[in-house]
Amino acid sequence: MKIQSPTLILDEQICRKNIEKMSVKAKANECIFRPHFKSHQSIEVGKWFRDYGVDKITVSSVQMAKYFSDDGWKDITIAIPVNVSEIENINKLAKTIQLNLLVDSIEAIEFLNAHLESNVGVFIKVDTGYHRTGIISENFEQMDEIVNSLSATKRIDFLGFLTHSGHTYEANSIIEMRMIYEDAVLKLKLLRERYSSQHSSLILSYGDTPSLSTMDEFSGLDEIRPGNFVFFDLMQKNLGVCGFDDIAMSIACPVISKSIERSECVIYGGAVHFSKESSINIFGQRSYGQIIRINDTIVKSQDEIHLSSISQEHGIIKVSSAMLQSLKLGDIIYISPIHSCLSANLHKYYLKTTKQKILKYSQ
Amino acid sequence: MKIQSPTLILDEQICRKNIEKMSVKAKANECIFRPHFKSHQSIEVGKWFRDYGVDKITVSSVQMAKYFSDDGWKDITIAIPVNVSEIENINKLAKTIQLNLLVDSIEAIEFLNAHLESNVGVFIKVDTGYHRTGIISENFEQMDEIVNSLSATKRIDFLGFLTHSGHTYEANSIIEMRMIYEDAVLKLKLLRERYSSQHSSLILSYGDTPSLSTMDEFSGLDEIRPGNFVFFDLMQKNLGVCGFDDIAMSIACPVISKSIERSECVIYGGAVHFSKESSINIFGQRSYGQIIRINDTIVKSQDEIHLSSISQEHGIIKVSSAMLQSLKLGDIIYISPIHSCLSANLHKYYLKTTKQKILKYSQ
Repeated sequence: MKIQSPTLILDEQICRKNIEKMSVKAKANECIFRPHFKSHQSIEVGKWFRDYGVDKITVSSVQMAKYFSDDGWKDITIAIPVNVSEIENINKLAKTIQLNLLVDSIEAIEFLNAHLESNVGVFIKVDTGYHRTGIISENFEQMDEIVNSLSATKRIDFLGFLTHSGHTYEANSIIEMRMIYEDAVLKLKLLRERYSSQHSSLILSYGDTPSLSTMDEFSGLDEIRPGNFVFFDLMQKNLGVCGFDDIAMSIACPVISKSIERSECVIYGGAVHFSKESSINIFGQRSYGQIIRINDTIVKSQDEIHLSSISQEHGIIKVSSAMLQSLKLGDIIYISPIHSCLSANLHKYYLKTTKQKILKYSQ
Repeated sequence: MKIQSPTLILDEQICRKNIEKMSVKAKANECIFRPHFKSHQSIEVGKWFRDYGVDKITVSSVQMAKYFSDDGWKDITIAIPVNVSEIENINKLAKTIQLNLLVDSIEAIEFLNAHLESNVGVFIKVDTGYHRTGIISENFEQMDEIVNSLSATKRIDFLGFLTHSGHTYEANSIIEMRMIYEDAVLKLKLLRERYSSQHSSLILSYGDTPSLSTMDEFSGLDEIRPGNFVFFDLMQKNLGVCGFDDIAMSIACPVISKSIERSECVIYGGAVHFSKESSINIFGQRSYGQIIRINDTIVKSQDEIHLSSISQEHGIIKVSSAMLQSLKLGDIIYISPIHSCLSANLHKYYLKTTKQKILKYSQ
């Protein structure tokens, strides 16, 4: 299949290697491996996970839970504070699968208690330092209230404490990542201890690709929920979390224009194919992606040829005049995205490096 | 229809007012009004344009041209340097409609000449200062070559010169915008003059919402191609191009979490619903969108309550503690996006303020 327009390219071998590695670590640590499927949003990629024994998953919306439950996934956690506006679809899903929800307020618990028609699992979302959602782990007064209110409900099975240490993405080193991780795990353990007399088997669930990919021991945790590791991307590479060869996804774009004056080539490929996520590369330049291959020729990664600017459908790449001379209109440039989850979200399918198309969910 | 998840809201009345205003200006200036449909990507919104006499349109991809031609549009310009990789679909389209393409190299012209099966219109893409694509207007040597090479082709109808002054988005004032516009028009006119003896009726085509929305006289131009003006957005408002009341689109998102400690509410609505486009608001804060309505209550625009942070599906809004107290989970917050085209691109449909769903193209 010849590439005609911006296309999401997926290397199944690298993907499977990434899945296997995380799966082996989870097993070694006797952790439930509940990968976050919002990264790939694909039933087909989901099937690869089954080959490594995965039967529990994480998603980020009710619709996505429905999409995967239709393919036979029976134990799904929606890892975002429960959206009460979707109670009707939550009730439909909870009739047929083990559905797990997140709460971080009495208000949410009271709503669920009043409206649930089947049993659901519920995790208390804990804020261990990321400060996006969740009950602050040290706020015992509020935590006591929440835990107590859960005890007084019907149809809610209190499963445990769940956190997402998104601030590992801001860490300046692997050491700092580890510190964030250790701090979060300690906070979760304290919570389990605090409520162990009332609740004997609370699950501690932890998610984020940077720390889970760089650490080998998950002592104390019961469940891990990494997502991005399935593909990785430049953001993870820049954080030191993965190498170039661990990145499973690229976006293939045709060359549509060249400027000798500015030593630039322009690709058909922009914000609607990559997202506007950017990062600063090793030369201090803003980058929307890094060139890894031109047609069949691998580009040396140390050269950091990058997508320096994007608009809705255009992308601009600064190249040497020698390279520009050799480029032809219609040549295909393969680019590693900054944030693979956001890029994947913009496309309807993946094209495997072995040329088969894989359909994916699109919201 | 109750809003359950992030939903694109469209005010048809404002849209029509925006369309009418631009259409009246085009008529007064005896310009062809060829709006860019990449902003809305919807057959239904396209029909509204027909009510104002529009029968020629601009799109940004071959697939989008196909989508609109299926709804009866018969004269379509694909305003991106021709993607030679899609020649097969270009040939299919050119059989049934007046298809116009952009070229900015001899290479593209030679390719088209060798592969076209039906006649197409061709514009030379001119770089009048934006420096993204196109032949630099002052580079007469290159321009002569291009114009001459067009004369030697079959199936290519040389239509004229086309530019997009995207650098008006960087202008610091309406005056600066006007200067960019006048400069571009002058450059286009010089080109027409230069080739007038060989080509008697060359079209000068100009596109960009900021200058076309703020100017009333388009003297010398034959065609205008604004796109974003149909919805406008915060980016245009910040540029001084439109007022708040001219923005036709918002994104409605349910409240899913609240933090009293941080005076924040969290919505279900993130980068996959808004895009990661941001801007700096009047208080110097980074903003991903501005709150305009909570349920049925209009929020005062001078307060600039804004989306201060977004991740894949979460959005964080700083609010006063009084407002936080009054918010309930499931309340719907309406947010003006920074860049309406990129936000619209992420959704499958619009919900009109009058509650009907409008389907749109999704790539």
